[in-house]
Amino acid sequence: MNTLGRSFRLSILGESHGPCVGILLDGCPAGLALDPADFAADMERRRGGGAPGTTPRREDDLPIFQTGVHQGRSTGAPILILFENKQVDSSAYEAVKSIPRPGHADWVALKKYGGFADMRGSGHFSGRLTTALVAAGVVAKKLLAPARVSARLLEAGGSPDIERAVAEAMAAQDSVGGLVECRVRDLPPGLGEPFFDSVESLIAHAVFAIPAIKGIEFGDGFQASRMRGSQVNDLLEDADGRTASNHAGGINGGISNGNELVFRVAVKPTSSIRAAQLTLDLKTNQPALLSMGGRHDACIALRAPVVVEAAAAAVLADLLMLEGLLPRIMP
Amino acid sequence: MNTLGRSFRLSILGESHGPCVGILLDGCPAGLALDPADFAADMERRRGGGAPGTTPRREDDLPIFQTGVHQGRSTGAPILILFENKQVDSSAYEAVKSIPRPGHADWVALKKYGGFADMRGSGHFSGRLTTALVAAGVVAKKLLAPARVSARLLEAGGSPDIERAVAEAMAAQDSVGGLVECRVRDLPPGLGEPFFDSVESLIAHAVFAIPAIKGIEFGDGFQASRMRGSQVNDLLEDADGRTASNHAGGINGGISNGNELVFRVAVKPTSSIRAAQLTLDLKTNQPALLSMGGRHDACIALRAPVVVEAAAAAVLADLLMLEGLLPRIMP
Amino acid sequence: MNTLGRSFRLSILGESHGPCVGILLDGCPAGLALDPADFAADMERRRGGGAPGTTPRREDDLPIFQTGVHQGRSTGAPILILFENKQVDSSAYEAVKSIPRPGHADWVALKKYGGFADMRGSGHFSGRLTTALVAAGVVAKKLLAPARVSARLLEAGGSPDIERAVAEAMAAQDSVGGLVECRVRDLPPGLGEPFFDSVESLIAHAVFAIPAIKGIEFGDGFQASRMRGSQVNDLLEDADGRTASNHAGGINGGISNGNELVFRVAVKPTSSIRAAQLTLDLKTNQPALLSMGGRHDACIALRAPVVVEAAAAAVLADLLMLEGLLPRIMP
Amino acid sequence: MNTLGRSFRLSILGESHGPCVGILLDGCPAGLALDPADFAADMERRRGGGAPGTTPRREDDLPIFQTGVHQGRSTGAPILILFENKQVDSSAYEAVKSIPRPGHADWVALKKYGGFADMRGSGHFSGRLTTALVAAGVVAKKLLAPARVSARLLEAGGSPDIERAVAEAMAAQDSVGGLVECRVRDLPPGLGEPFFDSVESLIAHAVFAIPAIKGIEFGDGFQASRMRGSQVNDLLEDADGRTASNHAGGINGGISNGNELVFRVAVKPTSSIRAAQLTLDLKTNQPALLSMGGRHDACIALRAPVVVEAAAAAVLADLLMLEGLLPRIMP
Repeated sequence: MNTLGRSFRLSILGESHGPCVGILLDGCPAGLALDPADFAADMERRRGGGAPGTTPRREDDLPIFQTGVHQGRSTGAPILILFENKQVDSSAYEAVKSIPRPGHADWVALKKYGGFADMRGSGHFSGRLTTALVAAGVVAKKLLAPARVSARLLEAGGSPDIERAVAEAMAAQDSVGGLVECRVRDLPPGLGEPFFDSVESLIAHAVFAIPAIKGIEFGDGFQASRMRGSQVNDLLEDADGRTASNHAGGINGGISNGNELVFRVAVKPTSSIRAAQLTLDLKTNQPALLSMGGRHDACIALRAPVVVEAAAAAVLADLLMLEGLLPRIMP
Repeated sequence: MNTLGRSFRLSILGESHGPCVGILLDGCPAGLALDPADFAADMERRRGGGAPGTTPRREDDLPIFQTGVHQGRSTGAPILILFENKQVDSSAYEAVKSIPRPGHADWVALKKYGGFADMRGSGHFSGRLTTALVAAGVVAKKLLAPARVSARLLEAGGSPDIERAVAEAMAAQDSVGGLVECRVRDLPPGLGEPFFDSVESLIAHAVFAIPAIKGIEFGDGFQASRMRGSQVNDLLEDADGRTASNHAGGINGGISNGNELVFRVAVKPTSSIRAAQLTLDLKTNQPALLSMGGRHDACIALRAPVVVEAAAAAVLADLLMLEGLLPRIMP
Repeated sequence: MNTLGRSFRLSILGESHGPCVGILLDGCPAGLALDPADFAADMERRRGGGAPGTTPRREDDLPIFQTGVHQGRSTGAPILILFENKQVDSSAYEAVKSIPRPGHADWVALKKYGGFADMRGSGHFSGRLTTALVAAGVVAKKLLAPARVSARLLEAGGSPDIERAVAEAMAAQDSVGGLVECRVRDLPPGLGEPFFDSVESLIAHAVFAIPAIKGIEFGDGFQASRMRGSQVNDLLEDADGRTASNHAGGINGGISNGNELVFRVAVKPTSSIRAAQLTLDLKTNQPALLSMGGRHDACIALRAPVVVEAAAAAVLADLLMLEGLLPRIMP
Repeated sequence: MNTLGRSFRLSILGESHGPCVGILLDGCPAGLALDPADFAADMERRRGGGAPGTTPRREDDLPIFQTGVHQGRSTGAPILILFENKQVDSSAYEAVKSIPRPGHADWVALKKYGGFADMRGSGHFSGRLTTALVAAGVVAKKLLAPARVSARLLEAGGSPDIERAVAEAMAAQDSVGGLVECRVRDLPPGLGEPFFDSVESLIAHAVFAIPAIKGIEFGDGFQASRMRGSQVNDLLEDADGRTASNHAGGINGGISNGNELVFRVAVKPTSSIRAAQLTLDLKTNQPALLSMGGRHDACIALRAPVVVEAAAAAVLADLLMLEGLLPRIMP
């Protein structure tokens, strides 16, 4: 469903072309200072900063605290943060209502919701909802301090020269995927619970909710599948759990070991491309050529790191709280 | 925690060297035929069939139905299936109680449970618990029919010549990782729920609970991060959702699209190796050399496919039930 | 937490004197017709219709569909319904910030949230939040049809002459409690799940969330504790489960039996009364006399029946869905 | 479902005439001393101590720790405690398979599970399962200390002369209900969470899972529905929350206030009575006379107090843990 977390709990809501998107945070400790200004930097990162290959849709992304915040601090009651959708142009979607866009959720939404889904701008499936997730991440990262979560784009189209890969994709009226790495420093050991709530399980659960994510690996990840045990095992160096190497990505037996938490996620290329693609017109049951001229990202991965941070931070804040390591009233 | 699923719910229990491991299944429809013989084939697959590189520990792995099964059928009440641990030899663990084994959960367990965890044979962290998960998988696969889940090992040590990779690792007193692929045919479209209960989220959650899994990818996965949109988009061919290609691995927008569901998981090399490794003796705070002479797999990935199937099947049976597509009384 | 339900899930939010209260509904089937006019009658019942003994606070209680509704129908995405707070006067609360009102949550809120809770008008603890719950009830009752939920006030102050009991309490600058009965007709048998999700368990869980509820009983309830088995057992009359009597209130073994579901709830007198009461000034640690002159109900039970209906309907809609008896796309 | 609790989680299992009943406890802190002898007193209270009016079925009720306990202490892994069923005589049930017993779950089980339910001795619906719940209570009460939970029978058949009420019912080949009161001392304030996880909500949820419970009230409960606000409000006496009276039963706004927690539950008369009752033979669709000659309690309420304690203790231990007030490793 649209809810994540056991004690620090997020519920996400909204559609791309409806009045708003938003996040409902339940279980946030009381007394946490929350100011709209706290959200500005991450919102700007999510918008992509106007870089080539990011959507020209420009929302101001100002968080509106509807509930749960009073005199600049969380009250202990559920926090509802809304973001208005202002730059909405749904004209393009009217025409293609019965023509599922390749790579998008149009066909499955039709199947699952029988034509009632609001699919303007991809509706509830839109990347627009990550605004709400990023807002949750801002709050979660505050709770996690002094632990710090930071993600960055390592590659686009398989190349570390990301600008070039994006430019080439744009020139070809195409899009391109990317690889994001996330690291969390100063995380306490002991987070995560066998059997089903391993740190990997919970982070993967949250991260795969982000549109366009198709893979995740922790520590050496897929490379570990090609290696020997003698290469992969991290050797304990002191009683605090420090290890010389960090092939495990900071997790043993599903539990954080105090080393840096490290994971990478694969972001697929944006499904919307300008080049014409073949699909089906469900009204006529005939093939149809579709070229997407709307406001799209050539490389959604450019804007993904802050969203990945948010997903990880939300999970870790919940684990911290479940472990009894977060005060119920912030100092 | 040790529970997975919303309506078809698994709870796993037990330790490697305690009396038993087991699974508690809640929410299974009534009337499902369940016979110990149904479990034999998957149990044998999990044991590894005596192949080189699999542990010599041989349990008979006979499922004992303690509750919830009457006259060969599920009753609707919780089903408890236990597997006795008979081939237990804990002598090796006494000696190394304060010497964490590299790559294992020994140190984090000490940190989290303060020395009270039963770590004989890795205790609750042991791969022995996958016996219980496989049992859940047997039940889940019955519920999923006619959809079929099947996984196999694609590579060990990065090579499709798996036997050779394992033999070489054994000769080097080492272990080696592997790559498992899982496919699900004839799955109905419409499973999975935005935002946080995408099919990818739920399957990844379950799969990362399996010890030694460090990565998962759906469809083209990490390869998609290196590709263009025009290469990755699957083009709709008919009104039933069929597509010419299947780069998405059967999932759009987190929801099953009726095509084959495809994912791969990275299995790290077994942490226990015969070659000596450096670690720390926590009593003396001095480095210690550790060589693991017990009954270990040189390539745990050899035995992983049936476990991956089980994790996926459990998730999909739950989704089927949540979607109202499973009868509450089996026909 | 602020969430109820497994598949049809409510999350409640808001404060009495903040911008709004609201409800987030997740899991509602797609295609359900939802119009603001559908809510008017229940909103008016909750306001009390201007009857003597009900608060003079008059909100228009117009539901604002923020998300999840498109072209007059649910889309399958989360539905956020907000109600603005317009008639807010917080002046009275400034003065008594450190003087806990007898019978209210002031002291526990202070203890739990350390002074950060927004307690103007009782904040998140206010009966104002039942507006949101009633909105959920409107949706749930639509899903439940043809089953019908109806509650009414049986007694106030122990007397069936309710108007008189309320008038006498008002004359005495006091408040008075009441007894509400709820009945559900045409409910299918088989709802509810042993062991912990009995129909009684789930309805009681929801009903005790309503402020001022201090007791619940099903069927003969407390009277049954004084009776003999031969008096309480309902005798089966036909194969459809019909029984001559209904001492069980429509539930056996925690499962609905197809007869009318019947329960009663005890509503305590409103805590706020005009007569002076002794309490403690936490600043001076001295006794203080407090007389509550704000806008209060002399008998909150007058307005409780529609709230009780909502709580029951939400639970039953969830059970219907879990049993596979609600379509995912409304016909 | 058969699971209760968010962080300290119980799953109940078993049938009256199957091999065993049991409880699976997940989330119990590590290091808690657990000895079979700890369970003896509560098990004896649940058996009824051989008092007139209690069942002659005598099980030894020895807890078998299958998992999660090592060297006399909890390990942090799930704890499975089983109780064998030895005194089983199912012969009486064969004859009445198609003749639903009045007041029992026979008909609803047939409807819900289609004849697959194991209804020997009422199967999973049996009061036998409260053995497992009591075991959970023993563990929970240890975690709760220094808070103390104690329940006792106040009345049977409406009279404080309980022995006489039971004797009269037995003489009449009938059964009789009772009223149980539970009190919890030294509970910390601040437990419980608005809106849906009020202390009343959670305790009522757990208590209504116990077979035969038909009502619950907190503090003055139903009596409060007949009273005035000036009579019911508890006046604050000191900054620690102490109040002169305790009409609220220790809970304001759904949150514990540090005073004694007080609630009462109504236990209906045992459904099984020796006197003949009319029911329906579902095979012939003809009325049938049924006289229950098995081993039954004339007053199940005699044995209920320790079960009510267990339900309350389990809920409160979970709340303590969620509030961060229970260590994860017991000192």
